[in-house]
Amino acid sequence: MSADTKPISPSRQENLRRMLTPRHIAVFGGDTAAEAIRQCRRVGFAGPIWPVHPTRSALEGLPCYRSAAELPDAPDAAFVAVPREATVDVVADLAARGTGGVVCHAAGFAEHGSGGASLQQSLVDAAADMALVGPNCIGILNYLDGAALWPDQHGGQRVDRGVAVLTQSGNIGQNLTMQRRSLPLAQLITLGNGAVTGVADLVEAVLADPRITAIGLHLEGIDDVAGLSRIGLRALRAGVPVVVLKSGTSELGARTSLSHTSSLSGSDVLCDALFRRLGMARVHNVDTFVETLKFLHAHGALPGSRITSASCSGGEAALVADLAERRGLELPPLPAHTETRLRQLLGERVAVANPLDYHTYIWGDLAAQTACFTELLATGLDCHLLLVDFPRDDRCVDGPWTTTADAFLAAHRAVGGTACAVSSLPEGIPEHLGERLLDSGIAPMQGIGDCLEAIAAAVQIGAAQRRVESLTPLEAPTAGTYEHHQLDEHVGKRELAAAGLTVPEGVLTTSHEAPEAAAGLGFPVVVKAVSTDLAHKSEAGGVRVGLTSREQVRSTVAEMDSLTDAFLVERMVQGTVAELLVGVHRDPQFGLALTIGAGGVLVELVRDSATLLLPATRDQIEEALRGLRIWPLLAGFRGPGADVPAVLDAITAVVDYARGEERLVELDVNPLLALPNAAVAVDVLVRKTGAAANVRCEPI
Amino acid sequence: MSADTKPISPSRQENLRRMLTPRHIAVFGGDTAAEAIRQCRRVGFAGPIWPVHPTRSALEGLPCYRSAAELPDAPDAAFVAVPREATVDVVADLAARGTGGVVCHAAGFAEHGSGGASLQQSLVDAAADMALVGPNCIGILNYLDGAALWPDQHGGQRVDRGVAVLTQSGNIGQNLTMQRRSLPLAQLITLGNGAVTGVADLVEAVLADPRITAIGLHLEGIDDVAGLSRIGLRALRAGVPVVVLKSGTSELGARTSLSHTSSLSGSDVLCDALFRRLGMARVHNVDTFVETLKFLHAHGALPGSRITSASCSGGEAALVADLAERRGLELPPLPAHTETRLRQLLGERVAVANPLDYHTYIWGDLAAQTACFTELLATGLDCHLLLVDFPRDDRCVDGPWTTTADAFLAAHRAVGGTACAVSSLPEGIPEHLGERLLDSGIAPMQGIGDCLEAIAAAVQIGAAQRRVESLTPLEAPTAGTYEHHQLDEHVGKRELAAAGLTVPEGVLTTSHEAPEAAAGLGFPVVVKAVSTDLAHKSEAGGVRVGLTSREQVRSTVAEMDSLTDAFLVERMVQGTVAELLVGVHRDPQFGLALTIGAGGVLVELVRDSATLLLPATRDQIEEALRGLRIWPLLAGFRGPGADVPAVLDAITAVVDYARGEERLVELDVNPLLALPNAAVAVDVLVRKTGAAANVRCEPI
Repeated sequence: MSADTKPISPSRQENLRRMLTPRHIAVFGGDTAAEAIRQCRRVGFAGPIWPVHPTRSALEGLPCYRSAAELPDAPDAAFVAVPREATVDVVADLAARGTGGVVCHAAGFAEHGSGGASLQQSLVDAAADMALVGPNCIGILNYLDGAALWPDQHGGQRVDRGVAVLTQSGNIGQNLTMQRRSLPLAQLITLGNGAVTGVADLVEAVLADPRITAIGLHLEGIDDVAGLSRIGLRALRAGVPVVVLKSGTSELGARTSLSHTSSLSGSDVLCDALFRRLGMARVHNVDTFVETLKFLHAHGALPGSRITSASCSGGEAALVADLAERRGLELPPLPAHTETRLRQLLGERVAVANPLDYHTYIWGDLAAQTACFTELLATGLDCHLLLVDFPRDDRCVDGPWTTTADAFLAAHRAVGGTACAVSSLPEGIPEHLGERLLDSGIAPMQGIGDCLEAIAAAVQIGAAQRRVESLTPLEAPTAGTYEHHQLDEHVGKRELAAAGLTVPEGVLTTSHEAPEAAAGLGFPVVVKAVSTDLAHKSEAGGVRVGLTSREQVRSTVAEMDSLTDAFLVERMVQGTVAELLVGVHRDPQFGLALTIGAGGVLVELVRDSATLLLPATRDQIEEALRGLRIWPLLAGFRGPGADVPAVLDAITAVVDYARGEERLVELDVNPLLALPNAAVAVDVLVRKTGAAANVRCEPI
Repeated sequence: MSADTKPISPSRQENLRRMLTPRHIAVFGGDTAAEAIRQCRRVGFAGPIWPVHPTRSALEGLPCYRSAAELPDAPDAAFVAVPREATVDVVADLAARGTGGVVCHAAGFAEHGSGGASLQQSLVDAAADMALVGPNCIGILNYLDGAALWPDQHGGQRVDRGVAVLTQSGNIGQNLTMQRRSLPLAQLITLGNGAVTGVADLVEAVLADPRITAIGLHLEGIDDVAGLSRIGLRALRAGVPVVVLKSGTSELGARTSLSHTSSLSGSDVLCDALFRRLGMARVHNVDTFVETLKFLHAHGALPGSRITSASCSGGEAALVADLAERRGLELPPLPAHTETRLRQLLGERVAVANPLDYHTYIWGDLAAQTACFTELLATGLDCHLLLVDFPRDDRCVDGPWTTTADAFLAAHRAVGGTACAVSSLPEGIPEHLGERLLDSGIAPMQGIGDCLEAIAAAVQIGAAQRRVESLTPLEAPTAGTYEHHQLDEHVGKRELAAAGLTVPEGVLTTSHEAPEAAAGLGFPVVVKAVSTDLAHKSEAGGVRVGLTSREQVRSTVAEMDSLTDAFLVERMVQGTVAELLVGVHRDPQFGLALTIGAGGVLVELVRDSATLLLPATRDQIEEALRGLRIWPLLAGFRGPGADVPAVLDAITAVVDYARGEERLVELDVNPLLALPNAAVAVDVLVRKTGAAANVRCEPI
């Protein structure tokens, strides 16, 4: 781990563990604290609850202690719902008493200007080595141990195992407890200001609890990339899937910058890159978040993307086919022996295929349905869907639908397999049936689209788990903002060439010497005005290509005279297969990020790019390259194709250069010309921190 | 209307009207027919129900008639659930008795091979002038009049007005009745084989019923483009919004063809083009289908895309912002006076913005919440969202949540406005509350993503309604498959030039004459091998550009000698701003379709294209052009820009040519070079039906 990931101290870690699995709970405050007592009782907390109040004699029938010091033992967890100033004192008392962790409910800290910020610092100091969740949060709902450090109603119930959800929005957390989808919610933690114990520490703590099957994060911002990276890696190694509902995608494009790279890799793109790197599945809707967590709870990550689907109607089969394709999932043809047996079972009126419309001829027939579903489950593909919407039980009977569920359960008992019952409308699986299915190891998935999105997430997480050993810590971000400067193109190219990048043969020259220099190189040539002030040379008239004579060079440099007195004359590179952009920039949060994509005029038009956080392996870079829309051009689409190893060498050289340049702010190689037998960087833009002195070359 | 839209005959139309609003119902069959009687009674059909059975004396307590001829009156609607052969006889009897329409439940017709197809033809003949739904369908649920021509349970109830859903999947239809989302389902028609009365006729019939507020179509295929086009136009004129759940998107790309145009405009793309043209909103999930219909029922189409959002938490506000941006919806800043009043109302701790996080300081305060929501509704923007998830009523109390709903209702009563209550999880709005909101004119929208998709659909439909007068009938499709041939490039260019397209100055010549012809045109030139066999000349080595001397031309034609004996020598066009593709192809179902997009090597790489069914107005073409990713290049992105009027002239010339050429199969202009002061077609490919004789030009 890199030094900046600030892992939690062992003692605070132990305190956090105590807080998340408390034997006893202290509550501070009046009516709000009383509500927490009631909620603990509703979910059946087995240990003692100790109310603390300076004047009241009892809360909810329990005698009040006057202060933390008077408590019979050091509480594992405390819920503090007193005014913000008093909160600091209570926290200090609790720390002194040897408390494990404390939930601070009061608001008015760092979220409220500088006065609040200094109060928050006092709180941090008071917490000493305790765990502390909040301030400005609702609390923690621990449905595993029945510890509701939570001063409000909620919709959940006790579970033996299940998912942990950490959210930056108390309201979204509370609403999640109201779901009617059989999601076993084991821990719900509202993060508030995260003054002491942040997302990373909390994820690490829940990862240590074997009762946690999957983790859901709802994030509005990311302030600890290194911490997230650290726990992402741990989750992958532990085989515990993570789903992220991250809002703030619409900030995309808000930042403006000199380089193309930066405009292609706004912070939301970097979040995506981080999540992809860590195998955290990203979702965009609350319902998808719930369904994905439910799938992962039931089945964990998947080894592959090959699924089967069965429905009693072609309508659902077609929807599954469409939505599966959108999610990159495959519905492969069934094995020959499976097809044969299904044909025997279903009769000649049924066309056996995948997705399978098994029709209603066997509707209500437990044995036939069981045999049919058994055949599908026995194929050993990665996931098996049974489409079924149960009728509304207040107006209809569900006899044959229950038979269908029974048949699926029987088939699953017989041959196993990763199985989902899927309803087209979320309300199509009633809660009691969802629980029954889940208890038997079948995921009750509510909504076809969300089900397929959840499966795709499980496939993505599985792939990340398998390649976890190639993951390395991220490059460090910039520590602050500095003065920065742009290298002139010649210097930039020289530095990158030294790192192994191929640049065109060329000379830096004066206007006077340019024609002869061009002749020495051989025509056609390119002439470029060289200056540290020219970011967009082409638009400024500072680039001319295809010059074929001394005279053309002479008149060209004369026209550019106002721009500079230094000219780069280069042999023109011909025979280009594709123009690429290769860029690296250092983000203040995420560190170095590599962006590759379609280059030249295509950059901002087609926005065909991929961003990877660094370091990245050559395999990861190649995978990103293959994912570009222009990949077929490189691979030889109706043409000769490019030298892909040379392109990868060039990208690797750029990455090596960037990683070795601590002062690098951003660099663009655009275009990198991919040729049939080489990859040549014809334009580069490099910006570094620090003043520009001593970096400018003089013309020959 | 064009002749091929086959509008229904007036007498059958009247019969269809009778069937969909029946005064009396006859049912044929045994237990299945008995179930239909029970279902009619459950939804309270007021008129007489007449069972017909050859042997039974009574069904569900009603005396049986022996045949249609014995019925006391000609029934408006009949439900026929007898074996398939008997169905034909019963239908003939019903036609003779003067029945309005008949639902044929039996399967085993056209869907079952040639034997079934001939039986279906007998059925069609027997129906004579009656309306006939099916065969191979479940039936019709008419919740307006309580006529359940439906032999199974279903989840709906009587309504006074609501949406009509037509579906090609009985199962999806049945599942839709089970929704718990307050969608008032007025008519549900399962289409089956559509042997007599198809989608278009049925939509036309429900459009005539003022109780129908919106129409939902679930289609697995489209076999009557002209009919859909006709009723789409009527629906737009009537102001009745239409939503389509069309499956089969994964067939995209299944067809292979010579032209780029055809590969860019597979049948699913044409479906999209048709729906967009007709302002039918397309959705891809069953839940989105339901939510969109519900929104349109409550509010109809929208005049614009500017919305407000209010939530008591920033978590939901951020999700709304993200998902709105994805759907092209705007959350504009609030007017200054609204901001001022909200600041007064909410206090300084609340940052007033849109989306608005109004916090929980006014939670439970009816007056303050009413005032807050009134301010937002009074802005007069196009739609107003209140985010609220109600707690689950089996475990929690919903007091302050109900206050919030009451406040929204009170604000809406006071100032009106298009209002939605939106829950983040679909189950967040219980059914009784959804009904209460809907009754008061507020749409209860279940799921943030689906809500915003529904709003975007309403915006799209509104735009289509406003431009309905510019819509004209589609061009006729090809009547069948013919032999077809490719014009050589010279002939193709000559024909298109005659229609007004600018092509490069050039001559058709022999290898011997080519060098001199080139000199006559002036260098640089392009030399192309001309042959009707060469679809992809470039790949075959039949195109060389940038030739600058007689000698280069001489050696070039010598190299191409094996390809042809005719060469097109053209002045090379220089100064290109962008390369476009302009193509037209005639689809057997959809008729002529225009595709425009990024041309040259970009066509298949970036797939930046738009397809319009023809005819299309210049405005529609320009709108499509502006929607392309390469539009900024044409408009002058970091460069001079292209002559957009010339580009539009060129596209119009291509369209005019195609519309005038009855034998046209497909044509590609690729690339059309967009220059600063012109648009020049440098390559064309034209295919027509018929043999190739007499269309080949000889070289000069």
